[in-house]
Amino acid sequence: MKHCHLKKKIKYDGSQLKPFWALEELNIKGPSIVTWIGPMNIKKEKIVDYEDKGREIKGGEMAHFIIEHFDSQPGNIKLCYHRQRMLIMILKEELLKMGIKTRREGDDLYINDSKLTVSIATASISSMKIHLGINLSSEGTPENIKTIGLKECNLDNKDIKKLIKNVAEKYIEEIRKIEEDITKTKTM
Amino acid sequence: MKHCHLKKKIKYDGSQLKPFWALEELNIKGPSIVTWIGPMNIKKEKIVDYEDKGREIKGGEMAHFIIEHFDSQPGNIKLCYHRQRMLIMILKEELLKMGIKTRREGDDLYINDSKLTVSIATASISSMKIHLGINLSSEGTPENIKTIGLKECNLDNKDIKKLIKNVAEKYIEEIRKIEEDITKTKTM
Amino acid sequence: MKHCHLKKKIKYDGSQLKPFWALEELNIKGPSIVTWIGPMNIKKEKIVDYEDKGREIKGGEMAHFIIEHFDSQPGNIKLCYHRQRMLIMILKEELLKMGIKTRREGDDLYINDSKLTVSIATASISSMKIHLGINLSSEGTPENIKTIGLKECNLDNKDIKKLIKNVAEKYIEEIRKIEEDITKTKTM
Amino acid sequence: MKHCHLKKKIKYDGSQLKPFWALEELNIKGPSIVTWIGPMNIKKEKIVDYEDKGREIKGGEMAHFIIEHFDSQPGNIKLCYHRQRMLIMILKEELLKMGIKTRREGDDLYINDSKLTVSIATASISSMKIHLGINLSSEGTPENIKTIGLKECNLDNKDIKKLIKNVAEKYIEEIRKIEEDITKTKTM
Amino acid sequence: MKHCHLKKKIKYDGSQLKPFWALEELNIKGPSIVTWIGPMNIKKEKIVDYEDKGREIKGGEMAHFIIEHFDSQPGNIKLCYHRQRMLIMILKEELLKMGIKTRREGDDLYINDSKLTVSIATASISSMKIHLGINLSSEGTPENIKTIGLKECNLDNKDIKKLIKNVAEKYIEEIRKIEEDITKTKTM
Amino acid sequence: MKHCHLKKKIKYDGSQLKPFWALEELNIKGPSIVTWIGPMNIKKEKIVDYEDKGREIKGGEMAHFIIEHFDSQPGNIKLCYHRQRMLIMILKEELLKMGIKTRREGDDLYINDSKLTVSIATASISSMKIHLGINLSSEGTPENIKTIGLKECNLDNKDIKKLIKNVAEKYIEEIRKIEEDITKTKTM
Repeated sequence: MKHCHLKKKIKYDGSQLKPFWALEELNIKGPSIVTWIGPMNIKKEKIVDYEDKGREIKGGEMAHFIIEHFDSQPGNIKLCYHRQRMLIMILKEELLKMGIKTRREGDDLYINDSKLTVSIATASISSMKIHLGINLSSEGTPENIKTIGLKECNLDNKDIKKLIKNVAEKYIEEIRKIEEDITKTKTM
Repeated sequence: MKHCHLKKKIKYDGSQLKPFWALEELNIKGPSIVTWIGPMNIKKEKIVDYEDKGREIKGGEMAHFIIEHFDSQPGNIKLCYHRQRMLIMILKEELLKMGIKTRREGDDLYINDSKLTVSIATASISSMKIHLGINLSSEGTPENIKTIGLKECNLDNKDIKKLIKNVAEKYIEEIRKIEEDITKTKTM
Repeated sequence: MKHCHLKKKIKYDGSQLKPFWALEELNIKGPSIVTWIGPMNIKKEKIVDYEDKGREIKGGEMAHFIIEHFDSQPGNIKLCYHRQRMLIMILKEELLKMGIKTRREGDDLYINDSKLTVSIATASISSMKIHLGINLSSEGTPENIKTIGLKECNLDNKDIKKLIKNVAEKYIEEIRKIEEDITKTKTM
Repeated sequence: MKHCHLKKKIKYDGSQLKPFWALEELNIKGPSIVTWIGPMNIKKEKIVDYEDKGREIKGGEMAHFIIEHFDSQPGNIKLCYHRQRMLIMILKEELLKMGIKTRREGDDLYINDSKLTVSIATASISSMKIHLGINLSSEGTPENIKTIGLKECNLDNKDIKKLIKNVAEKYIEEIRKIEEDITKTKTM
Repeated sequence: MKHCHLKKKIKYDGSQLKPFWALEELNIKGPSIVTWIGPMNIKKEKIVDYEDKGREIKGGEMAHFIIEHFDSQPGNIKLCYHRQRMLIMILKEELLKMGIKTRREGDDLYINDSKLTVSIATASISSMKIHLGINLSSEGTPENIKTIGLKECNLDNKDIKKLIKNVAEKYIEEIRKIEEDITKTKTM
Repeated sequence: MKHCHLKKKIKYDGSQLKPFWALEELNIKGPSIVTWIGPMNIKKEKIVDYEDKGREIKGGEMAHFIIEHFDSQPGNIKLCYHRQRMLIMILKEELLKMGIKTRREGDDLYINDSKLTVSIATASISSMKIHLGINLSSEGTPENIKTIGLKECNLDNKDIKKLIKNVAEKYIEEIRKIEEDITKTKTM
């Protein structure tokens, strides 16, 4: 599993959740974490959470993670949601190391009452995918939700890049370690 | 999924990892978290981690969690290891709320350089099981490993019971929430 | 798993077989049986049985069951067809209790030589779905097939509502009991 | 899938539930229904239903069905319990054709308040197995349970053989038909 | 599993990879190998190998195999790729029997440096499918690839028909034998 | 996946088919091919092919391959048998390159009418395993079977080591290539 950080400011519009997006658009083959910084505005027809239908899901500047796994054929959405939770908890751990305390509710992180992240997991017959978006600024986020961004927590661009790198690497290491654990555990 | 805290000081010897232990010994049917406080001394033939063969795995007083899931038939050890990681991260979150900062390496929690926990996940054709043991005291732990217990972090019996209850409830809620997420996510 | 009987006379046109229909249209989350009384006329492009292509599948007044299960990710069509058979056999049992003797051939019920029901099972990456339609009257059914309706067997509206309720409840109980059986059976 | 009726009066003692019993003992390869008439007395250590532990499970003269399926690798106990229900419902249908009305509760058939059958489903990494035993006489059954046998319903040996044959053939046909249904159903 | 050789010279354009093509177009139900001789020109939107996007995939006269399996629900692309490899190796074995020595690289056969075959495997929620095309002539193949056809190896129409028949029959026999092996192997 | 050739002349007695044998005995973690040259004499209770029960399975000097895969949890015997066939076909390809023509019947290779190999595949909840043994000499093989060894085909020790290395490497490459193919194939 490889991590690839894009320099380009792509807008996250939900199309990046499609299976094989990394292969088709970026020529990245196999399991991967693709990250970049950019705005978000999800097209209505691309919303995959039925409870979000009709809502605005957007942000002006966010750090995006798109993860794709191929180790379950067909993709297993239950396993994928467990991985999403692990990703969120790893982000929480890394933020704490940088002095930022967050509260987790399911797959959302909050600072006090302000929402810091959006996330979704999905699966297709081909692969499992996760999107995680972290607000860098509360500008451009929906008006009816109290939000906060990492820049408002005094992280600068360099800190944010380091955070992205650390979260991606810890996640890859966690998945690798679980694979290893499986090959050394007696089953019953 | 239900949580059942035992008042009896059972010794954890590895036999509790067997499928249907909760049903056979405690008459608890279905998915469950069984918790109790007691010593640990794992019989050699009950060690399921091949890298632990020949090691002593023991403790004088520990908080034990035994989790059993039936939602994958046959049991899926990969899914089970993801749940184990979630359990450890939830414990870490709850300890932090009580003012105790820990460091996580895979499925182990440390306070500074001292090991606080032991944990294993396994699967059988019938179910998936997790054991988590948290040292309450470093007494009775193996001499060649630096360990620490929660009592040495100034948690008293009441705090520990609260911690056990909170971790169990958060875990159950997390699993329930993931099930719910699955029923509202469009797959591709 | 919940049962929800709709008062509205919806036309069954095959679109109700889509995954998440109950969530999107009725805001019912999780596994469910949705029932109602209404006509049927399946759009050609919605026919999922390849052998029915080109046939008319319709009825003037029918009792409809739409069942959705999420307990296999991805949906398992083999399991789903077994559940469909169980549903048909439960319907047969309940009809017999009301004095109506039927003959079963696969997933069809007949009274003498007249067809009483239509049914299909399907699966998607997200869920498993079953449709069962029971003729209340033979009016509006295809002319080239001999059909019969429950009203022609002297059941009145009250009886039919009771039948729908009983079949839904027995099915839910059967699925629940199987889940329970799994958690108490030693595997080998 | 083949049906093989044994002339020998084997005692059912639970060992017949082992995977590959038909191959090892009878040289029957592949999916099969093996039937015979004989007594039952299940060894304590062979009881696979944890709730039956400590109970006597026995009968003087019974019709036995042992079914083995290999179409899920590893065996899927959930699918197997659905097939067990189908088997019981087919038995109920065939008894009714012979004029014997029964009541079903889960996997048990009753005549009035008297228990007619015992049944269990199980799975191993290799296969899925079902046992169904039908009392021919209430003699030799446990004293603390009200039981009834088919001979007490005025079925003679010839009727019983016919019943066994019909149930086995209907079950095989049902499984075959489901396989066929799968290959002609559009999934979504 | 049945083999059906078509007399009609169908053009392979990728649409034959769709699940249920054999049922919809040819009324062939269940697992099958359909073979025919005809040209190939895959529509851009029908290319399923992402690395082939933008390439021309065509041939003037080829022997085509379309295989569909239903024994994994949902379809398992990993299993399907293993079957594709087996198919290619069986073709290689049969060609050798006819005196034609080939070299295999993954799922491609070469004679010296000239490409003899194209092949792809895919899966859907319904079934698993394989296409194998063997050049009969190098005419009509892409200009930028060195190709060869069986007629250029001195096989005549009769030889080619025999080859098609033998490969299909050996493949069916191999799958049947594996099924049989499963039912007689102790698992651990 | 790694290949490890042992210098020690271990006797293959069937115990090497146990899950985690490579980890327990050789400290090799993860998917692996372990090869060595040594005799074979399978203990009766270690025979996993029910049709081989009662037969002698032995050889004086053989090249052994033990393969273990962890990429299906639990192990899938169907997938494993497909891999076994691929292994045999790769051996056949490599032998041909060395000028030795063999005939394949299922999982056996023959030279004329003499048996060259024995092989079995199996699965457990933990992993999938394959054993392949190639006779180097016909000495020590069962008397009632016509056998042949590679040394009788004029391969010397150096050739045999090269063959073992090539077969192991080709197999590893084939598995790797299939994994890669999966991550670039559109499913339907």
